[in-house]
Amino acid sequence: MNEIVLTGDRPTGKLHIGHYVGSLVTRLKMQEEYSDNLIFIADLQALTDNFDNPQKVRANTIEVALDWLAVGLKPERNIFFIQSLVPELAELTVLYMNLVSLARLQRNPTVKTEMKQKEYGATVPIGFLAYPVSQAADITAFKSTIVPVGEDQLPMIEQTNEIVRRFNNIYNCDILVECRGLLSKTVRLPGTDGNEKMGKSLNNAIYLSDDEQTIKEKIKKMYTDPNHIRVSDPGKVEGNPVFTYLDAFDADKEKLEELKAHYRRGGLGDVMLKNRLNDIMQGTLEPIRERRREYEKDKGEVLNLLLSGSNKAREIAANTLDEVKSAMMLKY
Amino acid sequence: MNEIVLTGDRPTGKLHIGHYVGSLVTRLKMQEEYSDNLIFIADLQALTDNFDNPQKVRANTIEVALDWLAVGLKPERNIFFIQSLVPELAELTVLYMNLVSLARLQRNPTVKTEMKQKEYGATVPIGFLAYPVSQAADITAFKSTIVPVGEDQLPMIEQTNEIVRRFNNIYNCDILVECRGLLSKTVRLPGTDGNEKMGKSLNNAIYLSDDEQTIKEKIKKMYTDPNHIRVSDPGKVEGNPVFTYLDAFDADKEKLEELKAHYRRGGLGDVMLKNRLNDIMQGTLEPIRERRREYEKDKGEVLNLLLSGSNKAREIAANTLDEVKSAMMLKY
Repeated sequence: MNEIVLTGDRPTGKLHIGHYVGSLVTRLKMQEEYSDNLIFIADLQALTDNFDNPQKVRANTIEVALDWLAVGLKPERNIFFIQSLVPELAELTVLYMNLVSLARLQRNPTVKTEMKQKEYGATVPIGFLAYPVSQAADITAFKSTIVPVGEDQLPMIEQTNEIVRRFNNIYNCDILVECRGLLSKTVRLPGTDGNEKMGKSLNNAIYLSDDEQTIKEKIKKMYTDPNHIRVSDPGKVEGNPVFTYLDAFDADKEKLEELKAHYRRGGLGDVMLKNRLNDIMQGTLEPIRERRREYEKDKGEVLNLLLSGSNKAREIAANTLDEVKSAMMLKY
Repeated sequence: MNEIVLTGDRPTGKLHIGHYVGSLVTRLKMQEEYSDNLIFIADLQALTDNFDNPQKVRANTIEVALDWLAVGLKPERNIFFIQSLVPELAELTVLYMNLVSLARLQRNPTVKTEMKQKEYGATVPIGFLAYPVSQAADITAFKSTIVPVGEDQLPMIEQTNEIVRRFNNIYNCDILVECRGLLSKTVRLPGTDGNEKMGKSLNNAIYLSDDEQTIKEKIKKMYTDPNHIRVSDPGKVEGNPVFTYLDAFDADKEKLEELKAHYRRGGLGDVMLKNRLNDIMQGTLEPIRERRREYEKDKGEVLNLLLSGSNKAREIAANTLDEVKSAMMLKY
């Protein structure tokens, strides 16, 4: 069976090393492993909770695409597209909305968590509450079989597959295809301040587009073990973001184990450790930043990539929509 | 200011005399009074609570259009279109969904009543709960200024105008246009059994397409005043469906007042009264039925009318969507 891989990013900010470790690295592997990869800018989804700030969404559409290209995602191996440029997705969303109850959406653990974070309650925009339906449209429009996700997004896959089964069952067909969520094995990177989440508003993220000096300073100020005051003190490795980052980026695992042991028994200073992390991160991020600079010279060309990709995506989605409408007797 | 009039019907059954008195007569007036009239088959809306019965929706699309033509609605005075053939409406729905909260939809009196009737509770399909948003898309896509409605639909107009104001306010523009609901002055016709609602499932409706004999029988069996047993008994006029129907269809108001007085004091039999109603109704419905028969000979032509109307409707809706997307910075 031919695998179809779909991933997307919300254009609400530039991508950071959390995105890199959590999803971009997986996509780089996918583009080698599979021949049908689609990656999209989820502008409509971003608007569900940023509808009053379209400028942000618009500006970050190009920034995110630049980050994709910068890390080495290739236009010849991926269809890059913009969600709102595939109107078939909105049509599928409206049709699937009949197959999902209010109670089911309110029970979706991902939606529940996000609603709590945003303190929405009953004031939640219906578009936000229903975004799992919109995601199901994104996934099924391309008959995606593999959707790389973080663990917190697994309920979305489940909700999508429920819609798939319900649709095929009600309309007595096998048009829609179930997908599987591919969990990335990497650790979730904390912010440089040790906060579980990394983000712009928390000012604790290292961006793929940060320059050398900025990265150096962010690493220098990184949170470590607060009880590790003198070099000679024993330090904690677990929950120490410097070690979490080294786990993610340091290729020399043997050396890393030595450093951990040394840190634990005392005698290894944070400065020395941060210098090592800085060297390694600069080594990873420099070629990315350089490639980004090249693409930044012609943002019009980047937009063109997104536009031509969106046309290709439309063709595929239009085929699926056509089948869906046939099944629902909406072909006149 | 140029008025734009929009009305629609859910294709869930043939139209009956309740529709005729309640909305078709108004449309006949509108097509004389205004130059921009749009009438649509709300197939997507019908699917929100008939998603498991697409056959019904599909079959009634043509039946409803036949009823329009039969009563004298003219293709040269109205754009007839099918909702699902204007995909811009789905796109607008998805965009507007960000501007309406769950609480606001749950507070909508029309939705509340219908949810109670259908005993939905939290199992309500999200597509059904959100159908006022879809209606707002229908109305605003054509910048409709007049929407003839029944009193029970006034909350829908209010909800639409709220979305209009919110959109124009957030995106600092005057793209969307508020509409006003035009209340028809006619009485709501009860079923032939006296039930407040008229419908197929209640088997108490006289259809525009019913033949002479069927109409005669339905009128013969009509519910009247149950205490009016002998001709000489005094009878009740209020709440007596035969009189409600005569109020709606009998042009000779003077004669009708005489009959009411006679009935009240006793001496006027139900049979005589029903014969009169039958004569009048046959007189109204015969030319409608004849015209319907003519159009039924070429249903393909009726479908073509809907298809070409849908193309015209798409052009208008696409213009509005284009403006909406510009305001939301979704033009790339």
